[in-house]
Amino acid sequence: MAKIMWINPVGTDIFDKPILNMLNDVKQPCTQVEVVSLKKGPLHLDYRYYEALVVPDILNIIKSAEKQGYDAAIIGCFYDLGLKEAREIAEKMIITAPAEACMHIAATMGHRFSIITGREKNIPQMMDNVVLSGMKDKLASFKPLGLGVHDYHKDENMVVQRLKEKAKEAVEKDGAEVVVLGCTIQFGFFKELQEYVGVPVIDAVLAPFKYAEFLVELKDRFGWLHSKKNAFEAPPASEITAWNL
Amino acid sequence: MAKIMWINPVGTDIFDKPILNMLNDVKQPCTQVEVVSLKKGPLHLDYRYYEALVVPDILNIIKSAEKQGYDAAIIGCFYDLGLKEAREIAEKMIITAPAEACMHIAATMGHRFSIITGREKNIPQMMDNVVLSGMKDKLASFKPLGLGVHDYHKDENMVVQRLKEKAKEAVEKDGAEVVVLGCTIQFGFFKELQEYVGVPVIDAVLAPFKYAEFLVELKDRFGWLHSKKNAFEAPPASEITAWNL
Amino acid sequence: MAKIMWINPVGTDIFDKPILNMLNDVKQPCTQVEVVSLKKGPLHLDYRYYEALVVPDILNIIKSAEKQGYDAAIIGCFYDLGLKEAREIAEKMIITAPAEACMHIAATMGHRFSIITGREKNIPQMMDNVVLSGMKDKLASFKPLGLGVHDYHKDENMVVQRLKEKAKEAVEKDGAEVVVLGCTIQFGFFKELQEYVGVPVIDAVLAPFKYAEFLVELKDRFGWLHSKKNAFEAPPASEITAWNL
Amino acid sequence: MAKIMWINPVGTDIFDKPILNMLNDVKQPCTQVEVVSLKKGPLHLDYRYYEALVVPDILNIIKSAEKQGYDAAIIGCFYDLGLKEAREIAEKMIITAPAEACMHIAATMGHRFSIITGREKNIPQMMDNVVLSGMKDKLASFKPLGLGVHDYHKDENMVVQRLKEKAKEAVEKDGAEVVVLGCTIQFGFFKELQEYVGVPVIDAVLAPFKYAEFLVELKDRFGWLHSKKNAFEAPPASEITAWNL
Amino acid sequence: MAKIMWINPVGTDIFDKPILNMLNDVKQPCTQVEVVSLKKGPLHLDYRYYEALVVPDILNIIKSAEKQGYDAAIIGCFYDLGLKEAREIAEKMIITAPAEACMHIAATMGHRFSIITGREKNIPQMMDNVVLSGMKDKLASFKPLGLGVHDYHKDENMVVQRLKEKAKEAVEKDGAEVVVLGCTIQFGFFKELQEYVGVPVIDAVLAPFKYAEFLVELKDRFGWLHSKKNAFEAPPASEITAWNL
Amino acid sequence: MAKIMWINPVGTDIFDKPILNMLNDVKQPCTQVEVVSLKKGPLHLDYRYYEALVVPDILNIIKSAEKQGYDAAIIGCFYDLGLKEAREIAEKMIITAPAEACMHIAATMGHRFSIITGREKNIPQMMDNVVLSGMKDKLASFKPLGLGVHDYHKDENMVVQRLKEKAKEAVEKDGAEVVVLGCTIQFGFFKELQEYVGVPVIDAVLAPFKYAEFLVELKDRFGWLHSKKNAFEAPPASEITAWNL
Repeated sequence: MAKIMWINPVGTDIFDKPILNMLNDVKQPCTQVEVVSLKKGPLHLDYRYYEALVVPDILNIIKSAEKQGYDAAIIGCFYDLGLKEAREIAEKMIITAPAEACMHIAATMGHRFSIITGREKNIPQMMDNVVLSGMKDKLASFKPLGLGVHDYHKDENMVVQRLKEKAKEAVEKDGAEVVVLGCTIQFGFFKELQEYVGVPVIDAVLAPFKYAEFLVELKDRFGWLHSKKNAFEAPPASEITAWNL
Repeated sequence: MAKIMWINPVGTDIFDKPILNMLNDVKQPCTQVEVVSLKKGPLHLDYRYYEALVVPDILNIIKSAEKQGYDAAIIGCFYDLGLKEAREIAEKMIITAPAEACMHIAATMGHRFSIITGREKNIPQMMDNVVLSGMKDKLASFKPLGLGVHDYHKDENMVVQRLKEKAKEAVEKDGAEVVVLGCTIQFGFFKELQEYVGVPVIDAVLAPFKYAEFLVELKDRFGWLHSKKNAFEAPPASEITAWNL
Repeated sequence: MAKIMWINPVGTDIFDKPILNMLNDVKQPCTQVEVVSLKKGPLHLDYRYYEALVVPDILNIIKSAEKQGYDAAIIGCFYDLGLKEAREIAEKMIITAPAEACMHIAATMGHRFSIITGREKNIPQMMDNVVLSGMKDKLASFKPLGLGVHDYHKDENMVVQRLKEKAKEAVEKDGAEVVVLGCTIQFGFFKELQEYVGVPVIDAVLAPFKYAEFLVELKDRFGWLHSKKNAFEAPPASEITAWNL
Repeated sequence: MAKIMWINPVGTDIFDKPILNMLNDVKQPCTQVEVVSLKKGPLHLDYRYYEALVVPDILNIIKSAEKQGYDAAIIGCFYDLGLKEAREIAEKMIITAPAEACMHIAATMGHRFSIITGREKNIPQMMDNVVLSGMKDKLASFKPLGLGVHDYHKDENMVVQRLKEKAKEAVEKDGAEVVVLGCTIQFGFFKELQEYVGVPVIDAVLAPFKYAEFLVELKDRFGWLHSKKNAFEAPPASEITAWNL
Repeated sequence: MAKIMWINPVGTDIFDKPILNMLNDVKQPCTQVEVVSLKKGPLHLDYRYYEALVVPDILNIIKSAEKQGYDAAIIGCFYDLGLKEAREIAEKMIITAPAEACMHIAATMGHRFSIITGREKNIPQMMDNVVLSGMKDKLASFKPLGLGVHDYHKDENMVVQRLKEKAKEAVEKDGAEVVVLGCTIQFGFFKELQEYVGVPVIDAVLAPFKYAEFLVELKDRFGWLHSKKNAFEAPPASEITAWNL
Repeated sequence: MAKIMWINPVGTDIFDKPILNMLNDVKQPCTQVEVVSLKKGPLHLDYRYYEALVVPDILNIIKSAEKQGYDAAIIGCFYDLGLKEAREIAEKMIITAPAEACMHIAATMGHRFSIITGREKNIPQMMDNVVLSGMKDKLASFKPLGLGVHDYHKDENMVVQRLKEKAKEAVEKDGAEVVVLGCTIQFGFFKELQEYVGVPVIDAVLAPFKYAEFLVELKDRFGWLHSKKNAFEAPPASEITAWNL
């Protein structure tokens, strides 16, 4: 059995229920899912400043999840904030996040992919992630929608229209063979969009969740875990205690 | 239920049984596995010439697997030969292969990985795959063993010693945080090696098999399949018929 | 004297005569040219599947050409399919192909070049070749014509118009200083196009043919041949015999 | 007059005095320097987890420094943690950090440079910074000393010996033309080392401090500030208030 | 005190006075500035041929400047011609140039920048500099104005209009967060342009001048000079004498 | 008939005779060869300063060669100095140089090559050429001999021993499949070395000479010349006259 925690790293629980429902709909029979969010904090993470504020809370949640026996945690934001930090402190737990999972899947599905973002502001930080993941030559384009995180489910018809327009441009003009939804809150749209554009449209909630189930299985069967050498070497418990961290 | 075919793309069935046993040991309950090899052909694929000879046979196997209702096929050689060709002709089937699967997993497990190959001869072609997959900056080193494909299970003690030596060098000198076994016939060694070097050692049979199960689930649940736009666009049936291919 | 074989790797001989004529017109006095095609097989190679089917035939032709004393073979398709495989099995013979030859020449003629392809489908595979050859930063753009291989000589006026339009765009908008014709069957157009756009237009038949003559001279005078170390190491004759390949 | 704040982003003030003295020794006449550290927190930042814990504190210090009229802040750790976050929230203030400053200077001083780090653990994160800064081809090597942050000033003779050994290796074996000290707490050694190896040795305290003075002058004279478009766009004050951040 | 020489490497002194005035307006109190140009030579440097003709003169000026006790020389053309040559022969003097200085500053100011050039002709050589400096991924675009060096101050209103148009395009379409003026003779426009586009506009005269002052201070205080190992190793005086160079 | 000029861009004619003899031995029947050197100037070009001094002379020679009806000029130094400048001013003439020619040939002969240089000093500038030519991933290593240009033919036995040692290291340790002699004055050794290491050894005199013959034929038959768009656009004759250049 895989116990998986989805973390909405924002100070609101309004996305918890819909995401929990989505995950319960698609989980493997033996997977047990929990969705949590932060008690307080910014309501979206478009700014690095907001991210910096929530990363310590994310890491605390992950530490306590590990104590409670969780097998995996997903940091539910396409910036993949705190991913490497969390892998450092996780002893036996799998940590993943949307951009990593979506890009791995997209790279398997086609030669190049485009990422639909909310705003132009998102592009530099996402590009850093693309570059560090080695996927730069597989990126056809970023396609900003001009929408904020909280706009996606107010007027869903308008959002669908705009998604269709940008996805079509990506495929027809930019040479994308796969479309990645570059925000977890763009959930609920991938199927309609996929039918419309005729290429795989990777959803930023479903992809990392399934990737987490996959990685948990690798961990349980083969002991494949985030390497504790160098990049994800854990801080010594003695220091953490001594310094009251 | 996932029907998955493992193809040993060589003209010998001596590896079929051990690989089938391995896969049956680790498969998900509903997965059904078959392992096939070629009726005739080279007994290993260290040369591009040998690969060229077997690719048409691999593609024929895949076409008939698709007709028989298989969900996925794995081309069981770390050169990933025929992978893109097979994705072109597959209509609904997932195709994967060892290098792709191992590199995706290794990139998730650490900052850099080394690939243990049989011979120096393997490096240029494998490097081409590394480069095209975007993983060049994640590669710490290739570590050739000086062994041929058919040497791995003759004197297993010697092989284990050599693997340990090369894996240790990779981790201690080259900065690898993960070790990838760069030949499917290096099967059976990953656990001992993993305990010895203390970092994840990715097995070239288990990794693509689990990756195939994962991709089949994505296909079944979300319709995420190899994009049929551009790179994997299928040749028209009319041409195939007209030209008697 | 240089004996050079041009291989049209398709199951039709309709291009053999015009290409033979072209080559005889431009060959050095001592060069002897033959053009061959396949007895059966696909009539074009837009798909990797078609390529996989013909590579074994290409390699057989090359092996027998070597026995007949040929100095060089040119694999006449801009995908350069089978090029590395052929270099593996060639003992003393030069092997070249259009993309390699055109890109080397174009890189010498200007800072950046554009490649005019038939269809968008061609781009991902050609891009792989561009990347592996190191020419990615020298590529200004791909310019797909929206034409199939067998369209080039049906309505040549239309083709010339479309070539002019794409070549002009490449030069004026994309910053190309050289234009490469990215299909051997775009033969016959380079001169008119070159006059029209005012930059060198590299023909995909003439370029590899002249490159082959050049390489044969290097071989004869200096013994410079495809290195038999690693990448092009030949499969052992003993294996080929033992396995009936 | 330039008011510049050096932040030692650790929960100890033991480095404040020596760094303040160093900076006062080398500042321009009109510069006013303050050195601050954190009230609590980890005593070094070798782990991303520790960094995550202190970034919010760094950002608070920077916000209040801006209110107090500081012209610049330097985040005093070679990981450059929080640099981009701080540039987002700074309205008129310059923010810089050691790796950025040292690499710019080193790139001006020679063709390639090596970075002397404390531990191998530091390399992956520092390499991410090198890659994102565009300096990967200018990096000759990382040279880990096998020392922790608090080891540098216990037995300084031993440290000098080890620094000399690694710096010499960098210059003689790795082709470095410049040496960068990859930890702010390696202060006090650059001059002796520079004389010993005969190439510039860039100090990780002095370099970003002088770079800050330089950038403040650019700001005051020409209004050149971190661009508030995209990457460093500031979060809206209204959100910060509404969400009590 | 810093003695800095600005070299206008062209055979006309018409730019000397305005540039001297600009530099005197912005220099640090103790800096002493001289602006020189060539006695004869081309009136602009759009062509590599013209550059080749003036580099020996530039190097002679620099050698004699060093004898006269100058601390730094700036080679005042955005091609940075002769920069590496000059660093070779300089013994104690700092040498810098516009492209280097502007790109370092621009990279600190934002994620990506665009360079406004005079003509398309300028792009290939400038791109070589961008690539060699490691800044390729930070370059959003080149924006040629379609103007020659001597057009900038004939009809300044027209020039301002064109600069505004290109800078706006860079920021709004190409994703630039910073604009770099890619010709020293585009002086006098940066402030108006900066206000208009709302992002930093880096001037190609002011940037290298301030960078020179900064580097001189590093030299004087810390002995950081262009490394004399490998790239900037000086030719032996004995050879220069023996060969009458 | 092809008239080709080899330029030894140094102030000594001691290499003219042996190179002329070499070229006459290997030229095509209709090729006519001349070898020239400079009346005065440095006796080798290990320093960029020396290069800067001779480039104007090289360009003058090329201009007058063009007037005398030469078809091609080869700038005979592995730094390829003045190559782009010369292509700018050449109207109808082919210009080539050793590094370009050797790297194109080496890239065709194997997966990776090593370059044997005289001194470490040569590496940074040669690396710039490697990077700009797109060949960085094809470079296995530089192998400096620790010899100056005038050492190659004093004690040839010693030189051969050292070449063999470095070439063997390149092939056996660095993974080179081809060896490039990175100095024109390493002439006379390639055959013995090639036999010794068993891989192609590309000579820096023969390679560009044959490449020039090849390019002249392309020019004569197809009109393929250095593009006069952008990078090699020629300076206007009117300016050259008006400015007395």
